[in-house]
Amino acid sequence: MSVGRVVKRVLIGRAERSDVGERALPKRIALPVFASDALSSVAYAADEIFLVLGLAGGSLALTQSLWVALAVAVVMAILVLAYRLNVVAYPSGGGDYEVVGTNLGPRAGLVVGSALLVDYVLTVAVSVSAGVQNASTAFGWLRGHEVMVAAAAILLLTLVNLRGLRESRRALALPTYLFIAAIAALVVTGAVRHFTGGLPAAESAALELVPADGYETVGMFAMGFLMLRAFSSGSAALTGIETISTGVPAFRSPKARNAAVTLSIMGALGIAMLLSVVVLARWTGVQLAENPATQLLRDGVPVGEAHIQETLLGQISRAVFSGFDAGVILVSIVTGLILLVAANSAFNGFPALASILARDGFLPRQLYTRGDRLAFSNAILALAVAAAVFVLAFDASVTRLIQLYIVGVFVSFALSQIAMVRHWNRELIASQDPTARAGIGRRRVVNAVGATVSVLVLIIVLVTKFTHGVFLAVLAMAGLYVVMWLVRRHYDRVSRELVVIDDDTSLTRLPSRVHAVVLISKLNKPAVRALAYARATRPTTLEAVTVSVDQEATAELVAEWDRRGFDTPLKTLASPYRDVTGPVVDYVTSLRSQNPRELVAVYVPEYVVGRWYQNLLHNQNAARLKRRLHFESGVMVCSVPWQLRSAKGQEVWLDQAPPVTGSVRGPR
Amino acid sequence: MSVGRVVKRVLIGRAERSDVGERALPKRIALPVFASDALSSVAYAADEIFLVLGLAGGSLALTQSLWVALAVAVVMAILVLAYRLNVVAYPSGGGDYEVVGTNLGPRAGLVVGSALLVDYVLTVAVSVSAGVQNASTAFGWLRGHEVMVAAAAILLLTLVNLRGLRESRRALALPTYLFIAAIAALVVTGAVRHFTGGLPAAESAALELVPADGYETVGMFAMGFLMLRAFSSGSAALTGIETISTGVPAFRSPKARNAAVTLSIMGALGIAMLLSVVVLARWTGVQLAENPATQLLRDGVPVGEAHIQETLLGQISRAVFSGFDAGVILVSIVTGLILLVAANSAFNGFPALASILARDGFLPRQLYTRGDRLAFSNAILALAVAAAVFVLAFDASVTRLIQLYIVGVFVSFALSQIAMVRHWNRELIASQDPTARAGIGRRRVVNAVGATVSVLVLIIVLVTKFTHGVFLAVLAMAGLYVVMWLVRRHYDRVSRELVVIDDDTSLTRLPSRVHAVVLISKLNKPAVRALAYARATRPTTLEAVTVSVDQEATAELVAEWDRRGFDTPLKTLASPYRDVTGPVVDYVTSLRSQNPRELVAVYVPEYVVGRWYQNLLHNQNAARLKRRLHFESGVMVCSVPWQLRSAKGQEVWLDQAPPVTGSVRGPR
Repeated sequence: MSVGRVVKRVLIGRAERSDVGERALPKRIALPVFASDALSSVAYAADEIFLVLGLAGGSLALTQSLWVALAVAVVMAILVLAYRLNVVAYPSGGGDYEVVGTNLGPRAGLVVGSALLVDYVLTVAVSVSAGVQNASTAFGWLRGHEVMVAAAAILLLTLVNLRGLRESRRALALPTYLFIAAIAALVVTGAVRHFTGGLPAAESAALELVPADGYETVGMFAMGFLMLRAFSSGSAALTGIETISTGVPAFRSPKARNAAVTLSIMGALGIAMLLSVVVLARWTGVQLAENPATQLLRDGVPVGEAHIQETLLGQISRAVFSGFDAGVILVSIVTGLILLVAANSAFNGFPALASILARDGFLPRQLYTRGDRLAFSNAILALAVAAAVFVLAFDASVTRLIQLYIVGVFVSFALSQIAMVRHWNRELIASQDPTARAGIGRRRVVNAVGATVSVLVLIIVLVTKFTHGVFLAVLAMAGLYVVMWLVRRHYDRVSRELVVIDDDTSLTRLPSRVHAVVLISKLNKPAVRALAYARATRPTTLEAVTVSVDQEATAELVAEWDRRGFDTPLKTLASPYRDVTGPVVDYVTSLRSQNPRELVAVYVPEYVVGRWYQNLLHNQNAARLKRRLHFESGVMVCSVPWQLRSAKGQEVWLDQAPPVTGSVRGPR
Repeated sequence: MSVGRVVKRVLIGRAERSDVGERALPKRIALPVFASDALSSVAYAADEIFLVLGLAGGSLALTQSLWVALAVAVVMAILVLAYRLNVVAYPSGGGDYEVVGTNLGPRAGLVVGSALLVDYVLTVAVSVSAGVQNASTAFGWLRGHEVMVAAAAILLLTLVNLRGLRESRRALALPTYLFIAAIAALVVTGAVRHFTGGLPAAESAALELVPADGYETVGMFAMGFLMLRAFSSGSAALTGIETISTGVPAFRSPKARNAAVTLSIMGALGIAMLLSVVVLARWTGVQLAENPATQLLRDGVPVGEAHIQETLLGQISRAVFSGFDAGVILVSIVTGLILLVAANSAFNGFPALASILARDGFLPRQLYTRGDRLAFSNAILALAVAAAVFVLAFDASVTRLIQLYIVGVFVSFALSQIAMVRHWNRELIASQDPTARAGIGRRRVVNAVGATVSVLVLIIVLVTKFTHGVFLAVLAMAGLYVVMWLVRRHYDRVSRELVVIDDDTSLTRLPSRVHAVVLISKLNKPAVRALAYARATRPTTLEAVTVSVDQEATAELVAEWDRRGFDTPLKTLASPYRDVTGPVVDYVTSLRSQNPRELVAVYVPEYVVGRWYQNLLHNQNAARLKRRLHFESGVMVCSVPWQLRSAKGQEVWLDQAPPVTGSVRGPR
């Protein structure tokens, strides 16, 4: 590796390396890096609570939303406390996948893996869609083009990540703090104006909200169900809690402790922001409707299709910052930005998880070596395509996408907390010291509560949303699970097939003779080099072979061969059908059947070109021949490359690996 | 090659092989094989004459169509006579491309190549579209779905040709004869009923045909222009004459003579059919309008969008076979069928021409070896995609597609006839015998007339249709020309770069030492075999190398290596970034810089799997590493394949080449 490359690598840094520890993240950077996903969800989770409660019409949303938000906040507090224990017990960065795999076995681990992969895809789809929605308060012209803009945003994220975000972590810290600051400013201004009596009502407060079709008469039971559904949708605010558990190795020492503290700060911020927004919405009287055209009435008349319903944050900021438009625009832009950053975090998490799954044989092995440009790129492209499909299929509608969301994360939460309980059970068995045992017991209670709550929420989500789309997410998870299991089974089978049996000498026995065959199509420099290299290996027999595809050209070749006086014999294989592969394979097969213990080494001159499209013009026959010869046992294929002038310096294209900005688990 | 494969090859036959001469085609089979394109054009050429003349409204089409058709017939007669000479002078099957390349130089040859490639694409698009149109007389439900049905037909042809049509030539002879028989039956029945006074008028005869928008007042000059345009469109009947000149080697001996006779028969049949159809149209009073909805009036009122305008053949057969519906349906089906066969002929001609262009370095060399499944498939897919694009872009409308058609064929006709004149000029110079000179002079006159007529028609086509779409076809040809010229330039440059200089000993000098590096990732059977093969080549230095991506796994590997007591040292390369390629390349580069005259041979164990998708799970790192190592000079890469059980017998997928049903030029 060149010095320059080493320097670049060190500068860009992979957090899991202890010898580049000085680049480990302080808490003030780690918080925004890992919290963008969790905090940004405030921007849509509150909206979704209001939209679901609004289905019943009237003031249900305004009166009940705070209770729903409180329930979400309580769950968040419990999960944050529980995950503090995960972080300390499993600080290696393997996250829920490792915790579950270790304690509940590989199948359960794979369930978590499938669930999280699907959830990364939905994080991108939901965040980007919500980002576009929020940004359109500032940029009204985005409206009506949401799908296209969201797709463009995904494309942008893909390109940026394919190219590699340099020093991105620190740069990405800014939007998170801006968002926190914006919400803080909103809350403080709102509170001051509210208590001084100067806070105006939101525009939509003047409208009448009527029930949606089918919700005209809602009984007690249905009302309860609606509140559970609102809770389900609001639980979107809970996603991202697990992110820090995959990022512990990126923290400064003491890593686990710092990560736990950051987790708590994140939880406190998340709870505070969610509740504040809901309170502000209540003070300003915001009304949100799933079908604003028909559900919202002005003076008893539906507002119609022309009515523009802004997001909760948009409406609140318009009221709070009335007379200060710059504030409204700032909140809108900053919210759009943090949602983009949240989507970007999935672009780091997805390849990282794919790498771990590949390490365990559940995905193609190449995805493991993340130092590789192509492997990394493949995971990024897979994520981008999947997210784009969801955005297109659901018209970039947050409300529709949110129905599929969360289930994956809660499958992961639930299994991970159950796994932690088991972890403590084992620790209890192993430990004899009563003080330690008491501590372990207390921790087990926390995780048990976490497990109970997670399972409860998961059930609520599945029940209240199943017909609204969750089954699609479950289907996707099941599909991924099956595919990954089949991949693993394939690797296991191959591995068993290839085990070396100790007393089997057939493998180590050397071939009795080596028959070298140099393929010649023209007598040019690559051919002469191939001949020299083949001779350098001192084979038992050495011969040059050409396939006569064109009689004239072959006659010329033979004449020149004789003229130059090569001492290697040139054999001509007839090919009446102008096929190169067949005659060579037939010839090699005949050599093998004459001397079964002989090794046939086929030397193929190859051109190395500078541009990828030039490969279409070269080596195609050679590539096909090599592929075909691989099916013959006792045959080895040696490529002798010839670097054309145009190839000089072009290897950089193969060398460039994008820096890895997300957290990656270190080698075990 | 196995006996079975040889037998299969011989049975399927490549006509250019003299030792399978007994499979050469008798004239009665050769005629339908090579004439389907030319004869099938009767099914749309006559329509187009009527449509263009009909633009002026009234009875212009009925009074003037015969003159236009006669002009087309005269041109056809001249071209058939001229091409008889081409066939005899250049019987090798290279067609116009060879005639022009030989006599007017490679640039002119390339113009013909580009023109014919474009025309093959349009042959497919036009024939399939016309086939759907004609078939909808029998199958009315096709109407309104023309684009989809045409696309499906292209897909069908693609699949059939990718798979390989077995014994197709003889099978494809049937539709051509059926079509000739159907037209003959139509003409005889029509003539008998006409002269006995029992031939009813066509349905559309009762309608009034008014001029199209913009053609209300047409002066003498405009009328002449319209007739020239009708002639241009009618010239579509002339395409396909050149086909036989590419198929001479497929005929029975005396090949050239038989081909010439077949050409004459084809010309006579084509002329007779075209004129008969026009006469029948006149007798039955068929009216055709480009915009039937507005141009056709019933009792003074436009017939409107609901009116269905059938093809000329459809309307004629309804009149001639009135009271005998089976006859109408038969004509419709047989016409659809021969047009499908005509489209199929392009699926043979296009790869054949691509193969010749590849031989001359204008297309990727792999397209030359047509004995290869993949090369053949690539050409077929390119043709299918291009044709589908045209069908989709022009709504499968024959009238719109025909505007682009013919120009390519007439570029080819014109250049080929000029080339023939030059050919005779050379012959005249070479010959002294006065009798022979007189014969040559006579032939030169024929080709000169052919050249004059072709150039005239080409000018007429360009002038009358330029604004109607011909420029698109010209653009496509120019684009192809440029690309193919660049490909040739690239090959030439590379070839110059690679010329072996006689007194340059740097190439033939053997490397002083061979350093063999065996890459090991796991200690399994493939690794042990790679080690044995590397040792069999008796290198100066032999070492095994592993990249430590996972410290635990590497420690295990080293321990097992020691336990088994291999006498080859195992070197571990550190890879903190879990990248396999970088450390190996760096290591190899360091070996090279220590001993620049040493050859480094890298042995890579590879897995051979049975299914293509399993390749996604294996060898990806190996493939990338090999690609990267090719950029290092003095490094040779040897693949040691290990055939997994699942690979057994799967090489057949690489062996299968589709039989070649079209005419291919033999090796020079």
